[in-house]
Amino acid sequence: MAYRAPVAEFRFILEHVAGLPDVVATERFAEATDDVTAAILDGAGRLCDEVLAPLQRPGDLHPARLENGVVRTSPGYAEGYRAIAEGGWVALSAPPEHGGMGLPTALSTAVNDMMSGACLSLQLNPLLTQGQIEALCHHASDEIQALYLPRLIAGDWSGTMNLTEAQAGSDVGALKTRAVPNGDGTYAVTGQKVYITWGDADFMENVIHLVLARLPDAPEGTRGISLFLVPRNLPDADGRPGVANCVKVVSLEHKLGLHGSPTALMEFDGATGWMVGAPNKGMAGMFTMMNNARLGVGAQGVGVAEAAFQQALAYAGERRQGPTPMGDGPIIGHADVRRMLAGMKAEIFAARAIALSCAVAADMAEASGEPDWAARAAFLTPIIKAWGTEVGMEVAQQGVQVHGGMGFIEETGAAQYLRDVRVTAIYEGTNGIQAMDLVGRKLGDGGEAAWRLLEEVEQTAEAAREAFPDLAGDLWAAAEALREATEWMLTQEMTDRFAGAVPFLRAWARVLGAHLHLKAALAEGGEGPRSALARVFIRRMLPEHASALAAARAGAGDLYELSDAALSA
Amino acid sequence: MAYRAPVAEFRFILEHVAGLPDVVATERFAEATDDVTAAILDGAGRLCDEVLAPLQRPGDLHPARLENGVVRTSPGYAEGYRAIAEGGWVALSAPPEHGGMGLPTALSTAVNDMMSGACLSLQLNPLLTQGQIEALCHHASDEIQALYLPRLIAGDWSGTMNLTEAQAGSDVGALKTRAVPNGDGTYAVTGQKVYITWGDADFMENVIHLVLARLPDAPEGTRGISLFLVPRNLPDADGRPGVANCVKVVSLEHKLGLHGSPTALMEFDGATGWMVGAPNKGMAGMFTMMNNARLGVGAQGVGVAEAAFQQALAYAGERRQGPTPMGDGPIIGHADVRRMLAGMKAEIFAARAIALSCAVAADMAEASGEPDWAARAAFLTPIIKAWGTEVGMEVAQQGVQVHGGMGFIEETGAAQYLRDVRVTAIYEGTNGIQAMDLVGRKLGDGGEAAWRLLEEVEQTAEAAREAFPDLAGDLWAAAEALREATEWMLTQEMTDRFAGAVPFLRAWARVLGAHLHLKAALAEGGEGPRSALARVFIRRMLPEHASALAAARAGAGDLYELSDAALSA
Repeated sequence: MAYRAPVAEFRFILEHVAGLPDVVATERFAEATDDVTAAILDGAGRLCDEVLAPLQRPGDLHPARLENGVVRTSPGYAEGYRAIAEGGWVALSAPPEHGGMGLPTALSTAVNDMMSGACLSLQLNPLLTQGQIEALCHHASDEIQALYLPRLIAGDWSGTMNLTEAQAGSDVGALKTRAVPNGDGTYAVTGQKVYITWGDADFMENVIHLVLARLPDAPEGTRGISLFLVPRNLPDADGRPGVANCVKVVSLEHKLGLHGSPTALMEFDGATGWMVGAPNKGMAGMFTMMNNARLGVGAQGVGVAEAAFQQALAYAGERRQGPTPMGDGPIIGHADVRRMLAGMKAEIFAARAIALSCAVAADMAEASGEPDWAARAAFLTPIIKAWGTEVGMEVAQQGVQVHGGMGFIEETGAAQYLRDVRVTAIYEGTNGIQAMDLVGRKLGDGGEAAWRLLEEVEQTAEAAREAFPDLAGDLWAAAEALREATEWMLTQEMTDRFAGAVPFLRAWARVLGAHLHLKAALAEGGEGPRSALARVFIRRMLPEHASALAAARAGAGDLYELSDAALSA
Repeated sequence: MAYRAPVAEFRFILEHVAGLPDVVATERFAEATDDVTAAILDGAGRLCDEVLAPLQRPGDLHPARLENGVVRTSPGYAEGYRAIAEGGWVALSAPPEHGGMGLPTALSTAVNDMMSGACLSLQLNPLLTQGQIEALCHHASDEIQALYLPRLIAGDWSGTMNLTEAQAGSDVGALKTRAVPNGDGTYAVTGQKVYITWGDADFMENVIHLVLARLPDAPEGTRGISLFLVPRNLPDADGRPGVANCVKVVSLEHKLGLHGSPTALMEFDGATGWMVGAPNKGMAGMFTMMNNARLGVGAQGVGVAEAAFQQALAYAGERRQGPTPMGDGPIIGHADVRRMLAGMKAEIFAARAIALSCAVAADMAEASGEPDWAARAAFLTPIIKAWGTEVGMEVAQQGVQVHGGMGFIEETGAAQYLRDVRVTAIYEGTNGIQAMDLVGRKLGDGGEAAWRLLEEVEQTAEAAREAFPDLAGDLWAAAEALREATEWMLTQEMTDRFAGAVPFLRAWARVLGAHLHLKAALAEGGEGPRSALARVFIRRMLPEHASALAAARAGAGDLYELSDAALSA
């Protein structure tokens, strides 16, 4: 079963659920008309169906490998990447003044979703470049922007994020890579970075590393971190890749999944770099890059879920095992198989609608400059990063289950989705870190963004009172419970918040998902497939908000009461 | 971090929670004294720690492979298997009259748990032999028993289950393998069977296949299935493996995990077989084998969860990432990491206690002949098969998460648990099939077994009212909700039951888990690590029973209202 990009679904959600029309009504995004949106989604869909999806299995079977210092990529990846770059798909949302299309993030998020479903290993490459473009736009000098942005946006060069070191993962502040001024405005960057996605590729003209490092006199922790741009090849006077910089790939990791995506141990040995942003303010640039990437990673989870669902659905429509309540047909007629498939579809809709709503908020923030929109985007970002990837894992898990014994056989491809998507819950900040961000930094405004979202949820419930009284009532009650729990959270010490952060985020995702499902049902007008799917979600999945909130409000006391010795006993 | 069998934990649960003392008080199991139990658990623990655990990685890295028709096994597996067989660990519970130890299933379940945690790929081999022994004890002729049982029990020969065919998985009745009488009391068995675990091994003197097949004039479906014993090598007059039978391994599967366990496509080409049980009554023998194996598979899930937990705990006790509420120590001090670890430990205790309670019920049924005990074992079997394996998957998933980026790197070993355990939710009847068995066949007695279990749960809640009033209250309320949902379930059509079967089973596991945690806390007497763990489970996990019951009671209507076309849209 080949992946097919769900183009009509994106159009429906963007138009009727996530609020793209508001974005297009702004001056900034006036060019993103219906026709443009349609053309973009159709074009990206064709690329995914025809070029990228066929690379999914070869990447798994023939992993990227390091050969005499060169990263040899999987069969077909060079051609696949070229199609992405030449089609202008690397950076849809990049600024027009540097060659970008300046389209809404809502559109690039939809494209990221479908490209991830087609071939996650390869999609990671442009996703990281997008983040780098965003960071350079906000923090780099005009000179750096002029030299690098057009080439990154065209996809001639790709970008990487070099944060993690062996001893410094979630604790970025513990990093040790050093940057010493060379006296000519450049810096000599020295250190090792681990888990560098697409650290190099044989098909890439140049690879531009954004590296977190410390100046000689930098303070400890995150306040002493600066950001450096370190190209693999130093651009010559004409801006072409020139002599090799002192950067090398030491080794590639042997991973559970994403075999087509080379994950490098990078060594910088006095490599020439340029500072991006101010000294000791590197975290700001990195956060710009990460926030963009976090939404993108959430979309990855949704995209993989879509692909896993499509494959399971196709299998369930062919495989026969005994008579079903729908007659002597395939297993899709069995109630338990149908429960799994309907649940997968309902989860995907909800997570995708949250992702696109987050993207719309980011677009509105950019177009309007209103801090409320920025706060909403910031609030939704950890939710979609964590929840989109949870849905990716859960749907891939169910996809294997629908296949029965075939699901455990690698040739089927169902298990690859499970393996590939697993890391999305870890990279760009683990899902635990996302949840802590939500209950810590993102509630730091006293919950303003939360209250505004909850008001909208209740408006949806109100609007649905007549057409779907039972569903509206459930949503209203869930929103009230979530409001109470959020108020409670605000009164707690940080350790108690952190102890309940993951289930708290889950409850938010459940309520937001129900809200967006109900919006879709209302847009449909009357009973139809949208309201049937909303019913599945609200009756079967929304109730989880209550158990999640119970866990969210459990506090940290019981966790520390159980001593380390007791945990080990 | 090397796996260490949790011997003290097994002793505690067996003695204070699962009810082993009642088993030992029977005449049938009087020999299973405290000293014997201790010696068995200690001995098995040593085998696991010293011999089996070191085979976990090599089996993954060097999969079993087919070479000129011979199944070459992973390095060290031959020696590992010999240690299992020579130690008498293949079949602890097998009848003494054929060379077994006749010990309680409760003990062999504990040993299966720990052997699965040490090396699941290899443990599968004796687990299947155990099921075959059970089937032969109940259904085979004296002659077959006398010839085969001593060799299977000694571990000289191993047993397999040959049910599945390409078109006949969950729908066993669709199988096509034929058995034609040879006229001398034997049969010529012809057909292909897929997914045959340990279908052959280069270290095995003989491999005995139990094969489901149809006699020439058999009725269609499951009523026309007979069971045949088909040895790889036909025993000679002295009972030694003689000439090769017409059985061969066509190919081995390339699987997500369990690489050390050869999964064979078997071809029977007029192979000589002996009927076991009556003509067309083969399902009875197969169910004996499967019920035994289902409890064993549940224990596999728990065992893998234990191993994944131990590794995550060790990592969390060493890895440092920033200051924690417990000071400047390792990440085990972070609230969210602690939440994961405490949750993993609480899940493992609950699932293990359910498994051992199920085993005790089976032992009591055998010892007392009371149908109530048999009904309890039958009721708990699908619960532990499905829930033990769900816990295996979920804890392995969390184990990867605790490792952060390291969890995605294969060398760490955390991901192997996730890959290995995945199939346990599929084989021996998928977890969906288990749940349908629970709401269908197992509630077929009008819920008698369910009501008796719920009475016990409420007795525990009553007993805990003074010492743990809040926990007791939560358990009582949950038991009431479960009772109501079970009553509701009994009034429903089968399709509506099936639509809610999986969440219904989940709710049962939640309530039973809380009940067993509270029993452990009461046995501890006063506040201690057991009550702290019970509190974690009851406050954070038990609340899920409510959301699961909401989904369990949703009925099938919404699933079928959503048409096939809508699912594909």
